[in-house]
Amino acid sequence: MDALPDQGFSLGRSERRRIRSGGFTGPTSGLAPGNVQANLVVLPHALANDFLRFAQANPKPCPVLAVSEPGDPTFPMLARDLDIRTDLPRYRVWRNGELAEEPTEVKHVWREDLVSFAIGCSFSFEEALIEDGIEVRHIACGRNVPMYRTSIPCVSAGVFHGPLVVSMRPLKPADAIRAVQITSRFPSVHGAPVHLGMPEMIGINNIDKPDYGDAVPIGPDELPVFWACGVTPQAAVAAVKPEFCITHAPGSMLITDLRNTRLAAL
Amino acid sequence: MDALPDQGFSLGRSERRRIRSGGFTGPTSGLAPGNVQANLVVLPHALANDFLRFAQANPKPCPVLAVSEPGDPTFPMLARDLDIRTDLPRYRVWRNGELAEEPTEVKHVWREDLVSFAIGCSFSFEEALIEDGIEVRHIACGRNVPMYRTSIPCVSAGVFHGPLVVSMRPLKPADAIRAVQITSRFPSVHGAPVHLGMPEMIGINNIDKPDYGDAVPIGPDELPVFWACGVTPQAAVAAVKPEFCITHAPGSMLITDLRNTRLAAL
Repeated sequence: MDALPDQGFSLGRSERRRIRSGGFTGPTSGLAPGNVQANLVVLPHALANDFLRFAQANPKPCPVLAVSEPGDPTFPMLARDLDIRTDLPRYRVWRNGELAEEPTEVKHVWREDLVSFAIGCSFSFEEALIEDGIEVRHIACGRNVPMYRTSIPCVSAGVFHGPLVVSMRPLKPADAIRAVQITSRFPSVHGAPVHLGMPEMIGINNIDKPDYGDAVPIGPDELPVFWACGVTPQAAVAAVKPEFCITHAPGSMLITDLRNTRLAAL
Repeated sequence: MDALPDQGFSLGRSERRRIRSGGFTGPTSGLAPGNVQANLVVLPHALANDFLRFAQANPKPCPVLAVSEPGDPTFPMLARDLDIRTDLPRYRVWRNGELAEEPTEVKHVWREDLVSFAIGCSFSFEEALIEDGIEVRHIACGRNVPMYRTSIPCVSAGVFHGPLVVSMRPLKPADAIRAVQITSRFPSVHGAPVHLGMPEMIGINNIDKPDYGDAVPIGPDELPVFWACGVTPQAAVAAVKPEFCITHAPGSMLITDLRNTRLAAL
């Protein structure tokens, strides 16, 4: 994660320019292939320190890729010409915990006390799984990944608390073992699975009824494999009902110049 | 695996001297803690090339740590003063596939055409699991590890063929994930598991009736996790019924000067 590679920069910049100009407002899956995409959480400075401590204490669901200076709408570590206020296709603006609007830019609500967090996203490790020849079921089905609130509590920090939320991908046992190896290389995008095989042990009583996203079929020769999920910090923020907050709209991620392979620990 | 460390040498040498002098004829588990112990297979030169090709084609069950020169009873890569003919507590001598004797040394049957193979053993990765705080059930129960013939065929080479034999350790799901990470670091001692969770998928129909070793209890919150096992090459040799063969007696391993940590790939 030292220098931003030119290949990632040119891929990321062209997509960000298209989005910034209003030319694209859809989901970012598949854009700038190979580039890291990130979850966005923007909070007033007064809450940002607690949130950073919450993320630090719960690194598997909340892997922080970058934190901005207060009021600064750039992420120089992640992209050379990025404007946090315009470069995502769609945002969600929250006031006192209620969804206030879903705009395509947030310049009109920007404040000098806002701190932005870019949080790792499973797109990066899913790309590595697919590259290895492993089918990622929800992608093969054209659905959203199934996500579940578990009975595992996060470590609380300041006002932030809540359950660990997990995403699930069904895999044959040998592929599950391979997926542990592959995703262990990517600690900054949720890393290795947190559980596999026995959903009831982590408080998931109906695998066919995810709390977020879409159900996917699980074959008789497959195990459900669970990874910590970036919805965890979003749910923790929602529970706090901050007076003001901006997030990405679901599926509408921050496209960086980092290459996914640069996140590999080994 | 470059230089043999002094610590491993002094631990290994004192145990080998005790064994060589006839002062110890039992199982080697727990001797020279931290030193690599190995399976031994000794074959006439005429069969050795086929056996080496079989091992090369099946590296998970047959990880070769060292191969001797024909007739040479030393393994300079594994230990500085080792004599293959005297330094194991107990041997098995096979003639035409039949167990002929179980002596405590094999000088009286040694031949100039014999090639020795040292094959990695699960003791090394079990030590790493225990070091990490993971209970290894058969050790906790004071039993032999349960082993099963699977429906997965090995790749044949020359006269050698046979099924993959696996060992099983029951683990809670989170420990199973951690065990994949830990044992992936040790490719020369069977590496990552080959299967977990669904024994029937690999032809194991009664987990309580292992083909070798002892059954162990599996908790309702545990998955059976399966590793490729060093009994695989022994079973392949047994099927060939070579005119002459020497192996270690079960549990009576070759103690080397290598430290287990030196086998870690990462």
